[in-house]
Amino acid sequence: MATTPPPPYLAVLFTNRRAPGNDQAYDTTAARMLELAQTIDGFLGIESIRSADQTGITISYWRDHESIETWRAHPEHLDAQVAGRSDWYAWYELRIAEVTRAASYTASDA
Amino acid sequence: MATTPPPPYLAVLFTNRRAPGNDQAYDTTAARMLELAQTIDGFLGIESIRSADQTGITISYWRDHESIETWRAHPEHLDAQVAGRSDWYAWYELRIAEVTRAASYTASDA
Repeated sequence: MATTPPPPYLAVLFTNRRAPGNDQAYDTTAARMLELAQTIDGFLGIESIRSADQTGITISYWRDHESIETWRAHPEHLDAQVAGRSDWYAWYELRIAEVTRAASYTASDA
Repeated sequence: MATTPPPPYLAVLFTNRRAPGNDQAYDTTAARMLELAQTIDGFLGIESIRSADQTGITISYWRDHESIETWRAHPEHLDAQVAGRSDWYAWYELRIAEVTRAASYTASDA
């Protein structure tokens, strides 16, 4: 998952449920968006999982609001957002948050 | 998933990977923790999913730092935290964040 610098930094919480169908186009675009986000200046990391019931959570981490805005307005990402609303998501919620504290744990035998 | 009030509010981002085994005890405790969190004053909502590869993301939402601290220090939750480190998680990362903006979308045919 994501290895982030010490806080503060920003997080974009994208919680969603897929509408049925369009799997190949969705999977291709989702993979491309993961790849593309990492090219944006200020990108710090991303964690993205989907459960068997098609609920998904993607958390991306960013240096500042300017880098989030650059990502939001990237032409390929704007196209994906349009397709997301028309074809791919039954619903989603998008939240912007400032991470102020972080702690990690790794099992000694991991 | 979670229906939260207008921001600002707080989010606890718990990203983790399960260690193999102890599934029944884990599942029982995880369900109990979901139930227990909702009894804490200041609890606003929770979203918790796990993917097929045993990576999990749980995001819980809270009114303020005091309510998060009440949850963190609840005796049953403290016991679960100990078991989490000794038995259940290969690793986890815990982040505290302040949600400042939120937007939602629901498909018109959903």
